[in-house]
Amino acid sequence: MDSGLTYREAGVDLEAAARAKARLGELVEQTRTEAVAAGFGSFGGRFRAAAGRELVASADGVGTKLKLAFMTGRHDTVGIDLVNHCVNDILTEGAVPLVFMDYFACGVLDPDTVVAVVSGLAAACRENGCALLGGETAEMPDFYGAGEYDLAGFVVGQIEFQAVADREIRTGDRIVGLASSGLHTNGFSFVRRLLFDRLGLAVSDSLPGVDASVGEVLLRPHRSYLEVLKGSCAAGVVRGLAHVTGGGIPGNLGRVLPKTLSARVRVSAWTPPPEFQFLSDESGASRDEMYRTFNMGIGMLAIVSSEDETGFRQVVEGSGCATYPCGEIVEGDGSVIMEWT
Amino acid sequence: MDSGLTYREAGVDLEAAARAKARLGELVEQTRTEAVAAGFGSFGGRFRAAAGRELVASADGVGTKLKLAFMTGRHDTVGIDLVNHCVNDILTEGAVPLVFMDYFACGVLDPDTVVAVVSGLAAACRENGCALLGGETAEMPDFYGAGEYDLAGFVVGQIEFQAVADREIRTGDRIVGLASSGLHTNGFSFVRRLLFDRLGLAVSDSLPGVDASVGEVLLRPHRSYLEVLKGSCAAGVVRGLAHVTGGGIPGNLGRVLPKTLSARVRVSAWTPPPEFQFLSDESGASRDEMYRTFNMGIGMLAIVSSEDETGFRQVVEGSGCATYPCGEIVEGDGSVIMEWT
Repeated sequence: MDSGLTYREAGVDLEAAARAKARLGELVEQTRTEAVAAGFGSFGGRFRAAAGRELVASADGVGTKLKLAFMTGRHDTVGIDLVNHCVNDILTEGAVPLVFMDYFACGVLDPDTVVAVVSGLAAACRENGCALLGGETAEMPDFYGAGEYDLAGFVVGQIEFQAVADREIRTGDRIVGLASSGLHTNGFSFVRRLLFDRLGLAVSDSLPGVDASVGEVLLRPHRSYLEVLKGSCAAGVVRGLAHVTGGGIPGNLGRVLPKTLSARVRVSAWTPPPEFQFLSDESGASRDEMYRTFNMGIGMLAIVSSEDETGFRQVVEGSGCATYPCGEIVEGDGSVIMEWT
Repeated sequence: MDSGLTYREAGVDLEAAARAKARLGELVEQTRTEAVAAGFGSFGGRFRAAAGRELVASADGVGTKLKLAFMTGRHDTVGIDLVNHCVNDILTEGAVPLVFMDYFACGVLDPDTVVAVVSGLAAACRENGCALLGGETAEMPDFYGAGEYDLAGFVVGQIEFQAVADREIRTGDRIVGLASSGLHTNGFSFVRRLLFDRLGLAVSDSLPGVDASVGEVLLRPHRSYLEVLKGSCAAGVVRGLAHVTGGGIPGNLGRVLPKTLSARVRVSAWTPPPEFQFLSDESGASRDEMYRTFNMGIGMLAIVSSEDETGFRQVVEGSGCATYPCGEIVEGDGSVIMEWT
C-alpha cells in the first residue's frame, strides 16, 4: 500500500478513464472515413483533404441545453446537437465536414455518461459523413457540479459549394426558410429561467399546447441541413446560407449579406411551432426579444434565385424538411429588415 | 421598458459579449498568416494547407491549472499553456501548426478576463507561426463559479517532418530529454490538494527550495518545442518525439514506439528541478506515482540516431533548451523500461 498522496485520492481516476477510453475507441472507429489517415491513440489525428481545396474550421459548444441532459439523465442527444450545429455552421461557408473532435470536461468521470455523450457524437458524425477523429476527455475536480459536464466541438471541412462560399447573392433573390426541429441549441438560459424558476415546471410535465413533455420538447436534437441541402448546393442553386443560432434571424442573416444588399423577411410567412408561442405568452418577452433569442421555427435560411425557388423548395420538401418562402434580397446596406405584418 | 423576461435578466449579457468580441477581433487579426483565407465574424474560419499535405488535428484543455489563474488573478498565461500544449502534440506527428481555435466558457462573461486569456492565446499563436482562426465564447449561467471559466483548444497542422510522422525509429537510437519549463499542464489536481489543502500554503508564499512564489512557479507557461526542434526535424535528424503530458514519461514514450522496440530510460541522467523534489518529499507519493503524474523536468523526448545525438544536442542547447541524454531504443515489445538506478 502506498501511503502517499495519489492522483486518485486527488479526485482523478485514471483507471475509470482508461475503461471509458476503450469504449470510446470503438465508437470513434465506427465513424472512420477515407479522409482519416491514422488510428486512434496517437497525439493527434491525421486526415487528408482534397488537394488544393480551401478548408473551413469552426468551434462550438452545446451551451446550457446541457442542463436539460442533466435534469433528464438523457446524455445521448447533446452530442447530436453539437455535431449538427458545427456541420450547419461550416455549410454556410460552402463546406462539407471531414473531421470532428470533441472536448468533454467533468468533475468526476462517469464512464456511462461519457460513453452516452460520445455515442451521440458518433451517430451524428456518421449521419454527416464526418470522421470523429478524437478529442479530449478532461477530469477536473472542483470545476463541475456532481453529474455535470461541459461539451464543446471542433469541425474541419472542405469547400465543395463555391456559390455558397462566395455568396453569389443578387437583388431579387428569394429567401427560403427551412424548418427547425425545435429550439436547437439557443435560448436555453432564458427557457430554464422561465419554465423551471418562474413557472415551477418539471421536465416530466407535459408542455401546455404541445403533445410531449417539457424534457422531450427541449431536448429534441438540433437538425443537420447537410443532407437536405447538398444536392441543391452541388447544383449551384443555393447562393447563400445563414444558420439561425444565437441572435436569431436578425442576428445571423446579415452575416452572409454583401454590404450593398439587404434582406426583407416576412415574418407572417410561417407560424412558429407551439413551444415558441408558449414561451412568448408565458414570458411576456417582446417580439424583438423572442426573434433575437430563438429560431422561432426556422433553423436555416437559404438564398436562391427567383427562378429556382419553386424547384428548390420541392427538392428540400421531398427530403423531409418543410420550407417557407419568407423574403427577398433588395438593394441596401447589409441589414435585415423584419416585416412584422 | 420591456416588462418581459429578457436574455440579460436570464444571466446573458449580449452587449458585454459584443464589446469583448471587438477586442478579440483585434487580437485575432494580429495572428493572421498566409494560411488564413477569410476574415473574422463568419460562421467558420477559412484556411489553406499545402496541396496534398497530410493534416493533423488535436484537441486539448488546460485542466485544473486554470484554478491557479483564478487564485492569482493572472489570466494571460493559460492561453500560452494551451496553444503550446497543442503545438507540441501535433509536432510529435511531424506537423507544424496552421490554425488554432479556442473554446472559452464561463458563467458570466468578464470582458477583461476573456481579453487577457485570448491575449495569451494570440501571443503563443504568433510565436508558433499559427493563426488564431476564431473560437467560441460561451456564457453559461449556473455552470461555472464566479470568476471561473474553462478553456479548451483545437489545432490543425500539416505534416512537414516525415521521419517524425513515420516514426523511423531503430534499435540503438538514442533518447534525448528536453527540459520542461516547470509543471507544464499536468498534475495540478494533485498539486492543489497537496499545497493548498494539506500544507495550507497561499499562492503568494514562497515555495521552499525555489526562489519564487507558489503562484509564479505553478503558473510558468508550458513551453513550445517547435522553435528548438524544427531545424533538426527538417534535416531528418529527429525520428520520433514524445510529448510528456498526463501519464508522464512511462505513459507517453510508448505511444510513439513501434511494437517491436522498447525504450530504456535512465532516470539518473537528469536531476528533477526543486519543485518536483518538494512535491515528492511533502506528498510522500511513490516514485512511480511521481513519474506518472509529472514531467519531472523533461517536457519532450526526442529519438535520434547515435551518430546524430551530439550534434542534435548542440543545436537544441544552442536554441536555449537544456538536453539530457537519457536512454536508448532496444529490441522489445513497445514498452518503456524505467531504469531507476
